Amino acid sequence: MTPVRPAFAPWLATTNNITAGFLAAGPNLINMAGGLPAPETFPAEELAEIAAAVVRDNPGQALGYSPVDGLPALRDLLAARFSTEGLRLTRENVLVTTAGMQGLDLLGKVLLTPGQVIAAQFPTYLGAIDAWRMHAPVYRSFAPDDNALDPEVVLAGAQFGYMVPNFSNPTGRLVGVGLRRRMVEAAHRTGTWLVEDDPYGTLQYDGVALPRMITLSGAMGDEGPYDGPVIYMGTLSKEIVPGLRIGWVIAGPAMIRAMAAAKQGSDMCTGGLTQGIALRALQGGLMERTQPGVIALYRARRDALCDAMATHLAPWFDWETPVGGMFVWAVARDPAFDTDRLLGLALKAGVCVTPSSVFDPAGGYRRAIRINFTLNAPDRLAEGVRRLAVAAAELQAGGA
Amino acid sequence: MTPVRPAFAPWLATTNNITAGFLAAGPNLINMAGGLPAPETFPAEELAEIAAAVVRDNPGQALGYSPVDGLPALRDLLAARFSTEGLRLTRENVLVTTAGMQGLDLLGKVLLTPGQVIAAQFPTYLGAIDAWRMHAPVYRSFAPDDNALDPEVVLAGAQFGYMVPNFSNPTGRLVGVGLRRRMVEAAHRTGTWLVEDDPYGTLQYDGVALPRMITLSGAMGDEGPYDGPVIYMGTLSKEIVPGLRIGWVIAGPAMIRAMAAAKQGSDMCTGGLTQGIALRALQGGLMERTQPGVIALYRARRDALCDAMATHLAPWFDWETPVGGMFVWAVARDPAFDTDRLLGLALKAGVCVTPSSVFDPAGGYRRAIRINFTLNAPDRLAEGVRRLAVAAAELQAGGA
Repeated sequence: MTPVRPAFAPWLATTNNITAGFLAAGPNLINMAGGLPAPETFPAEELAEIAAAVVRDNPGQALGYSPVDGLPALRDLLAARFSTEGLRLTRENVLVTTAGMQGLDLLGKVLLTPGQVIAAQFPTYLGAIDAWRMHAPVYRSFAPDDNALDPEVVLAGAQFGYMVPNFSNPTGRLVGVGLRRRMVEAAHRTGTWLVEDDPYGTLQYDGVALPRMITLSGAMGDEGPYDGPVIYMGTLSKEIVPGLRIGWVIAGPAMIRAMAAAKQGSDMCTGGLTQGIALRALQGGLMERTQPGVIALYRARRDALCDAMATHLAPWFDWETPVGGMFVWAVARDPAFDTDRLLGLALKAGVCVTPSSVFDPAGGYRRAIRINFTLNAPDRLAEGVRRLAVAAAELQAGGA
Repeated sequence: MTPVRPAFAPWLATTNNITAGFLAAGPNLINMAGGLPAPETFPAEELAEIAAAVVRDNPGQALGYSPVDGLPALRDLLAARFSTEGLRLTRENVLVTTAGMQGLDLLGKVLLTPGQVIAAQFPTYLGAIDAWRMHAPVYRSFAPDDNALDPEVVLAGAQFGYMVPNFSNPTGRLVGVGLRRRMVEAAHRTGTWLVEDDPYGTLQYDGVALPRMITLSGAMGDEGPYDGPVIYMGTLSKEIVPGLRIGWVIAGPAMIRAMAAAKQGSDMCTGGLTQGIALRALQGGLMERTQPGVIALYRARRDALCDAMATHLAPWFDWETPVGGMFVWAVARDPAFDTDRLLGLALKAGVCVTPSSVFDPAGGYRRAIRINFTLNAPDRLAEGVRRLAVAAAELQAGGA
């Protein structure tokens, strides 16, 4: 007889099982669901040499405990990299994190208690929803393309605003400089924290980079080191490789200290080996050397996906070609189209994409899908889209 | 004019600043506070070669995203390593974590809501208190050396029990096999989860290893894969090096799945590079080759510390020589001796140790200190103890 075990925390009943669903699919599945980079872009030989050199040159630093807030040299490099004339950053503005996801986790730990408000762009990155789920927040959703948007109304009374201004996950949309500035001004006026989550900023295929919100915020502050309301989050996962699990938060010193206190109880420190590799790779210009090839590859894949979609998916979906990032967001023309059901049929047809419901904090929005174009070669993308069209036709014929 | 920022979560007001205090001390400080390994024990050349080989041989695995619950081969290896005749483990019993601390964080996330009870051995590992602070638990403390201890009374109604049976942090005490068995039996009878936190198990200097609590629990269960109440946590930080940030949780499949769901929103996955290094190092017997030298070195340092303590600290403190681990726990003879105040004087004298207040969830126990012996060579340990005696004499003379 087994006695009753203590109950799990209530938030566990609300987690998504989308990942488990994908893993249960067969080996011939074309995976267009995740935000995965193309492994052929990984600079393996350079990273192998750097890894060995980092251990040999300073084993105490590479293999021992690191400071909770990160290796000082890496914090200094990141502060210099993101500084501009109007944005003055020092080491105290930088926290090294165990990849971008940890920044979201630490943010929830230091700012959320149950029932507090997050003003989040809708649809919202699944990982952010996952990270904050345990704190039972209330979401105040806003659409960045809503012409009637009033940033002060959006931010007032929230613990923080959350945006992915560059090639948003999931929509791939670029937030224009006008709205960036208005959101930052509203954050300065209301005092509300404003999270600028920017994993995709360097993956731009057309046009020129827009100013970061933290840069705009810096120009609105005084002469000292940055102490404004924007909390900027970046990662090496898309710039170099995800397997290093290196990310960073740039914010005012009080926020950095709070998040470091939370990190102390989360994983103590990010590893010295991976931080050392990141430091040397960034110092040596690895990102600048590899990025042009990555961008050319991904631009061609984006175009291949959009071409195939035009051929096969136009009867059911509308979409815009994204100027950057990893995803195309396709919205069904029929408001009653159910992409949760589409996913079931798509898996049977041998393809997976991500249904919009997981990007809705309330789970009810089932009209769109997110399609990744970075992982697969053009012929696989075309075949995946063909399979997706089969599933869409079956759904409309009353299947599932 | 800066508007008021949203408040930080209340738990942040309760964090310890012990680490910041140490960092503020001067460069001549002898650090006997942290649980730091001796860097000269790090197998740097072997790990440099392994790191490069892991990247070259399988760049997709080393540099890409890993499964949330860990590399299957590493989970299989750990399952095999901890299996015994009575304890049947499969991959589903193992979660790879970003070092031991993350196991404690994930445990809090899946089991704690404010006001719930943790039955924790007293004094309690500071990192565990840190990891669970944000959940505002209620501590039911128990002393493993209390002869009147009733394990069922201790565990009944708690979400989990927490023990470090091997060379406990901070006391260095070994929990005997009798109490291990009684605690496990009580966990089976009450249903309460029982955490066996075991970072120091391989660092034993005298005598033979005692059976793990999860091994005792396995023998009480049925024929299938382990599904009992013990949650075992281990780490490579003390067995090989801390800089890899690799740890593991071994538990029943439902607990592993819950903790993996929490890990998904914490850091998505542990890096493929460091998991690959851990896998190859364990497969190649690196731990078995390096451990004898580490144990000989640390045994000599333990003896050097205890000799110096006998010479200099006997007027003020009592202690036992630990048979393993990294620490000596010294309790003041005078119940009014205040080790928080001692620390201030010790820092001025050029040495730091950890005061007992940080190991008390309520913060009030100020009669003891934890002294680390693994980081420093014998002459530094002796000098550190001499400085500590200067501080103790000054405290008793009315200083601070």
